[in-house]
Amino acid sequence: RVLRFLYLYIHDWPQPSFMLKTLEELNVGTYDTIQTIQEDTSVIDVLGTFVKYRISALPVVDKNNKIMNIYSKFDVIGLAAEKTYTNLNMTIREALSYRKERLEGVAKCYKEETLAVILERIVKAEVHRLVVVDKDEHVIGVLSLSDILSYIVLRPLREKT
Amino acid sequence: RVLRFLYLYIHDWPQPSFMLKTLEELNVGTYDTIQTIQEDTSVIDVLGTFVKYRISALPVVDKNNKIMNIYSKFDVIGLAAEKTYTNLNMTIREALSYRKERLEGVAKCYKEETLAVILERIVKAEVHRLVVVDKDEHVIGVLSLSDILSYIVLRPLREKT
Ligand SMILES: Nc1ncnc2c1ncn2[C@@H]1O[C@H](COP(=O)(O)O)[C@@H](O)[C@H]1O
Ligand SMILES: Nc1ncnc2c1ncn2[C@@H]1O[C@H](COP(=O)(O)O)[C@@H](O)[C@H]1O
Repeated sequence: RVLRFLYLYIHDWPQPSFMLKTLEELNVGTYDTIQTIQEDTSVIDVLGTFVKYRISALPVVDKNNKIMNIYSKFDVIGLAAEKTYTNLNMTIREALSYRKERLEGVAKCYKEETLAVILERIVKAEVHRLVVVDKDEHVIGVLSLSDILSYIVLRPLREKT
Repeated sequence: RVLRFLYLYIHDWPQPSFMLKTLEELNVGTYDTIQTIQEDTSVIDVLGTFVKYRISALPVVDKNNKIMNIYSKFDVIGLAAEKTYTNLNMTIREALSYRKERLEGVAKCYKEETLAVILERIVKAEVHRLVVVDKDEHVIGVLSLSDILSYIVLRPLREKT
């Protein structure tokens, strides 16, 4: 019902000026409560985190919070389809070894990049989210398709208040 | 906290017997409150539905509820990246014409299919959900990665109660 009301205000995709703003300026994405895992986290803990926080992927970091990989719900389904029997105490390190290699590595972005650049990267990489990192590759946030679309839909309301 | 507790019970991926049960037997997926759109729905209405119901894709159906296509959050981002200016009053029919052709069509399944068959199809099609259809291709449900993983994580609790 609230969204119906918003339709009065939003009729166009954000103008070019908006697309040229940076993530930092737009403040889109999740930054405060980022869930991450390490290579020795068990698959069962990862499953629990997916369900509990309703998120679709988790950045895999080293002890210094530096990005190493990403593990998604899709990877879990792939694991189950691959093997007739899956021990859920298996670590993410082991689970990743069953995944078909993705040569491109983790799709990332920086807070200083513009929305236009970011949309293009998401489409080219065919991913559902980018991991936001600082210049030392530490994970500082996650930017998912949901964040971008929620932002655009709710923006008119935000500007009114 | 509830999930932590469950970890005591679940340590293995469901046994083969479970994988050989049908969707109908397992009752996994969403069936009662399926959101669908038609080709003449506007992109702005679709955006609102994504955000309001927190879902990542919508089956496109004809007037008889027969499956024709599927439109996802990823498609919206692709649309925005493709064009410098996007009129959100555009219909889904028009929006779909900008999408790179997917030759495979919509990934579907039937309630009578087993979880094993379904996991394999999801992995091969590289999709995040299957549209559940009846034998006349009418949409009756949606089965997403989230549904399968939630089911598996929460299953031990369900069996105890
Ligand atoms: N690892 C994560 N930690 C915290 N929040 C996340 C994580 N991944 C995604 N999110 C947020 O959760 C919401 C849903 O994400 P998703 O299901 O991946 O589209 C979005 O607001 C994301 O920014
Ligand atoms: N078109 C839809 N209508 C109603 N529920 C849906 C639809 N698509 C997905 N769902 C459900 O919404 C939840 C999240 O879906 P998803 O974000 O696609 O993983 C799952 O329980 C799905 O079964």
